[in-house]
Amino acid sequence: MKARVYVMPKAGVLDPQGKAISHALEGLGFAGVNDVRAGKVIELDLTETDPAKAKSAAEDMARKLLANTVIESFRVELA
Amino acid sequence: MKARVYVMPKAGVLDPQGKAISHALEGLGFAGVNDVRAGKVIELDLTETDPAKAKSAAEDMARKLLANTVIESFRVELA
Repeated sequence: MKARVYVMPKAGVLDPQGKAISHALEGLGFAGVNDVRAGKVIELDLTETDPAKAKSAAEDMARKLLANTVIESFRVELA
Repeated sequence: MKARVYVMPKAGVLDPQGKAISHALEGLGFAGVNDVRAGKVIELDLTETDPAKAKSAAEDMARKLLANTVIESFRVELA
């Protein structure tokens, strides 16, 4: 079963990558971009077939490795 | 209106970041991980309020800057 972990910088945390993208978009002539935040998606292919167990395993992985919970928040979705 | 652009490496394209995560998860004792793919999410806060126009603008940004369409595929979602 597949799980997707979305990791985003928390609100209020400086996001230099997002800022760089925002400036680049402006430079390319895209107007009307107020804010850009850049995060990560990690797609996990798990052998676990029970949705509840797969989700809790993915959350555990996110907490221990994929996200830095001091500055990042994460969300797990099963696909 | 907010748009999210998901950028993933295309199937068949080598994903060293995903491989590194996979090995790290194994090292941490997580079993049952078959495959890991690592991608990006870019959250755009656009002034455009028309959903169709916002989506097409975000797709345009993805094609021109956010994704390298030779090796990456992208998907736009409005939030």
